[in-house]
Amino acid sequence: MSQTLFIFDILNSSKKIDQTNFSLTNTDMGLPADIPISIEQECLVGGKQVGSRLITLCIGNMTIRIVPTRAMAILDVTRNNQRFGWDSPVKEIVHPQFINQEASGGIGWLDGFNEMLVRCGYQWSGHPGQDGDEFLTLHGRIQNTPADNIVLSVEQKAPYRVTLSGSVSEKRFKFTDYEVNTSISLTLDSPYIDIVDTLTNNSSYDNTYQSIYHNNFGQPILEEGSKIHIAIAEISPFNQYATQGLDQWQSIKKPTKHFDEMVYNIRPLKNDDGTCFSLLENANKDTGVEVAWQYATLPVFTLWKNTDTVEQGYVVGLEPGTSFAYNRSHQHALGLVPTIKAKESVQFSVRFGLFTSASEVDASRNNIKQLQSTQSPVIQSSPPVNL
Amino acid sequence: MSQTLFIFDILNSSKKIDQTNFSLTNTDMGLPADIPISIEQECLVGGKQVGSRLITLCIGNMTIRIVPTRAMAILDVTRNNQRFGWDSPVKEIVHPQFINQEASGGIGWLDGFNEMLVRCGYQWSGHPGQDGDEFLTLHGRIQNTPADNIVLSVEQKAPYRVTLSGSVSEKRFKFTDYEVNTSISLTLDSPYIDIVDTLTNNSSYDNTYQSIYHNNFGQPILEEGSKIHIAIAEISPFNQYATQGLDQWQSIKKPTKHFDEMVYNIRPLKNDDGTCFSLLENANKDTGVEVAWQYATLPVFTLWKNTDTVEQGYVVGLEPGTSFAYNRSHQHALGLVPTIKAKESVQFSVRFGLFTSASEVDASRNNIKQLQSTQSPVIQSSPPVNL
Amino acid sequence: MSQTLFIFDILNSSKKIDQTNFSLTNTDMGLPADIPISIEQECLVGGKQVGSRLITLCIGNMTIRIVPTRAMAILDVTRNNQRFGWDSPVKEIVHPQFINQEASGGIGWLDGFNEMLVRCGYQWSGHPGQDGDEFLTLHGRIQNTPADNIVLSVEQKAPYRVTLSGSVSEKRFKFTDYEVNTSISLTLDSPYIDIVDTLTNNSSYDNTYQSIYHNNFGQPILEEGSKIHIAIAEISPFNQYATQGLDQWQSIKKPTKHFDEMVYNIRPLKNDDGTCFSLLENANKDTGVEVAWQYATLPVFTLWKNTDTVEQGYVVGLEPGTSFAYNRSHQHALGLVPTIKAKESVQFSVRFGLFTSASEVDASRNNIKQLQSTQSPVIQSSPPVNL
Repeated sequence: MSQTLFIFDILNSSKKIDQTNFSLTNTDMGLPADIPISIEQECLVGGKQVGSRLITLCIGNMTIRIVPTRAMAILDVTRNNQRFGWDSPVKEIVHPQFINQEASGGIGWLDGFNEMLVRCGYQWSGHPGQDGDEFLTLHGRIQNTPADNIVLSVEQKAPYRVTLSGSVSEKRFKFTDYEVNTSISLTLDSPYIDIVDTLTNNSSYDNTYQSIYHNNFGQPILEEGSKIHIAIAEISPFNQYATQGLDQWQSIKKPTKHFDEMVYNIRPLKNDDGTCFSLLENANKDTGVEVAWQYATLPVFTLWKNTDTVEQGYVVGLEPGTSFAYNRSHQHALGLVPTIKAKESVQFSVRFGLFTSASEVDASRNNIKQLQSTQSPVIQSSPPVNL
Repeated sequence: MSQTLFIFDILNSSKKIDQTNFSLTNTDMGLPADIPISIEQECLVGGKQVGSRLITLCIGNMTIRIVPTRAMAILDVTRNNQRFGWDSPVKEIVHPQFINQEASGGIGWLDGFNEMLVRCGYQWSGHPGQDGDEFLTLHGRIQNTPADNIVLSVEQKAPYRVTLSGSVSEKRFKFTDYEVNTSISLTLDSPYIDIVDTLTNNSSYDNTYQSIYHNNFGQPILEEGSKIHIAIAEISPFNQYATQGLDQWQSIKKPTKHFDEMVYNIRPLKNDDGTCFSLLENANKDTGVEVAWQYATLPVFTLWKNTDTVEQGYVVGLEPGTSFAYNRSHQHALGLVPTIKAKESVQFSVRFGLFTSASEVDASRNNIKQLQSTQSPVIQSSPPVNL
Repeated sequence: MSQTLFIFDILNSSKKIDQTNFSLTNTDMGLPADIPISIEQECLVGGKQVGSRLITLCIGNMTIRIVPTRAMAILDVTRNNQRFGWDSPVKEIVHPQFINQEASGGIGWLDGFNEMLVRCGYQWSGHPGQDGDEFLTLHGRIQNTPADNIVLSVEQKAPYRVTLSGSVSEKRFKFTDYEVNTSISLTLDSPYIDIVDTLTNNSSYDNTYQSIYHNNFGQPILEEGSKIHIAIAEISPFNQYATQGLDQWQSIKKPTKHFDEMVYNIRPLKNDDGTCFSLLENANKDTGVEVAWQYATLPVFTLWKNTDTVEQGYVVGLEPGTSFAYNRSHQHALGLVPTIKAKESVQFSVRFGLFTSASEVDASRNNIKQLQSTQSPVIQSSPPVNL
């Protein structure tokens, strides 16, 4: 009997394994020679990249680039030559050693912000500022933490599922004892990437947490005429400025100087399986990205429309979360600061559908319309928070 | 005539020596083949450990693990299979590049806190907060500074004294010009480890300093029924909460949820040699750790009873210092902000006795009782500082 | 036809080139064997140097040491065995991973301050403090940023110009999108080093910037009897303390305890080419350093007289800039917070003349006197800013 699972430790502090620069072909992984799966890792150099790693996973028509030194972020994905991700003015893959999250009133996080999938959390997420005695920096600490225990596993039989997992810890004596086990998995010839992250509170005390999946998409999907579809229970503007664009929340403008960002708080509908859906489709409706997620642990969603100039980072965020993007101080009253009990875990599931045909996009849009057809969205004309 | 001292540069910026991963056996060091002394250094990998080094020194029945990248901290010691140290929720040996001491109001130091011997200082130590125009972060900067000039020296004749020294600098143009030369030394078949640190003010100006040896011990020595012995001139509670446990200051509770920490300020008695003594013994009184130190430069002592749950870090600190654990702002009035004159040095001597037999523990306890027998401790029922 | 330009990539993130430790001789560079040009790079080790690089460029009678990991700073230069630079109490070449610029109220920059040429900028420079909603740390962020795209180019024919260039980026999503291309160049048998830095605003929005060339010189040029010459339109004391030394602004005291620093704001005269000049000559007038610069983009100058004790860092700064050394909040009213338009660049040119003969020094001094002869300096007896 042949082995059915290829397992490869990329980084493991306990086993003292660090593969640094490596590449594996399909045959290295015990796969048939005609199965197009390969992986490589590069140790980056130059400027603020030194220390950063970049893992490139090629599976059939998909290439995923993952940044293990930034909490297993997904930098971008290419499927059928269509890039999913965005173009931040931050070009380097910045190593956390060069990030000071406390800088300039707590916005140093922005110095490294350029990935498609950015995790925000876990002791807190959201905008910087004081919450009681605590000063909270923008979007929490996890994204600027290098992962450990990075493992590649590849099923050696169809559908040849490839999983890349890694753990990231957020610990502070007396305050925080969190560990998150992340996994990214996908199969040949499927347009979906599954993210399953398990956050564990190793403490003997309950603790609050927040999590936002800051998923970001820019050109070429994002363009004038692109459209956003989400099955919505309730939508509200984040702030006064966003009230101006509330009735066009689904529409995308061309890159627009001085647009800055309009942000919307969304309480999503879920289907019978507890899944929620959002879709960004291009103007031609033949390319799009679907972000689906499990409602149980990610009950709200932030739509971040940052359709300013291209240079400024023309980008839309499709962001399921435990919480909105406000500073945590505003979210207690909204019921969006959940608790994770001592020794317990919470699992977050997010799925990316990377669609490169009209039929894929149509199916996703129709599914969302079907879900929305059961009820009309409640539209709150004012922000729920007085900023 | 044979050489009598083996000297080995482990790290030296001037000589451009960096031994990275290495190991030396007794014969490598010119020792007889039956003398059980060896050393190795490992460059750690994974998560926030990347960049960290760990030196493991084996001498007879003792194994000491030292962290040169964290100011020559002692991670832990094993003697006769008895571990001395503690289990912090922080498991990684965190490299300083990932520590932001200014974080969250100055408590980022806690993100890497897990060693048996942690140095606090030197421009300041103690709790975070404002002291006049200066914002002071928790316990000063030295612990998050990698050492240089790391040298192993081994006497090639009995008692085969092994010394590991390293220097750590704390410098800021116009403000601080400190260099500390640390040394850890021990001999075969002795239960003692000697720490001798020399702090030099290289400036042409006098400057104030503070130093605390944050020595931490947990399970298995620490358990219900463990007892603390210190020869005391005066004891006071650190804060109101600690007043509740003042009369049981010598007793150790089992891991206790919501206990948090009780802290006591102690002015110790010294013997005729100017030495002070503290002992933590287990319930069976057959294992214990003695912390002895020279009064001249470390005139006060903090007893940190953090006997909360195991997960929270069940630990007691036996901490000689120039100062108590208050923010420096409170210590000027207490006379605990000493001055080091321009170009002068101050030497700190701390000795760990790692006892694994009832006779060793008995001798230490009897010595402390003998010293205490000359006078009764003054017990202050209120904190000396109004927090 | 032979190649006329030797080009060598030292560090390039795009090309994945990192030469780490290397050395090149004249023949390696395709130069004649009698042309004394060589270069080497060393990866430093020990303490807070780990990660730092040091490039040593030898050209005839000049040796320049450059720190690519600190924004292409010039550590020091030796010409004809005369050292140009200074002796900071900070001895290590500190890697940015160990600098927290937010520390202690924004002065963490001082933990690594020891070079001859230190760039301050670019989103801001000057003293730390609040400017409106923004907290600005001392002298901006650029100096604690490692360079990328480091290239050596050497002309293979007389005058054998050697150029070392590197780029440094200062980026923050939504706030700053600056890239500076630095170059240091010099030729055989000339006493001049040319610095040409081009700052580009890659954003689609105009942005303000500030730039100061913090050029620092100590012993042996700096000594009792050294003299400063600058062609001046207007001079004012930086603060009340500096008013005391205003009439002796050209004179240098011996190392003087408690002198601290006296700082002067200077609006310089320029010659017909738009060049401004400053000179620090030794007491014998046979050694000196001239700092010349283009007025167009560096219209003001700070004279930093820090002639305190040798240990404290006996040093004078000759500092052309867009701005004085005040916090930016004070410089709006002075008209010293310029704007760089979207997609535009600003070029800064600074030239160091490293003079080791009386004739060189005389020529420089005479040139400055000639320029000053056209008008008398306006001397403002009070600081322009009420601190």
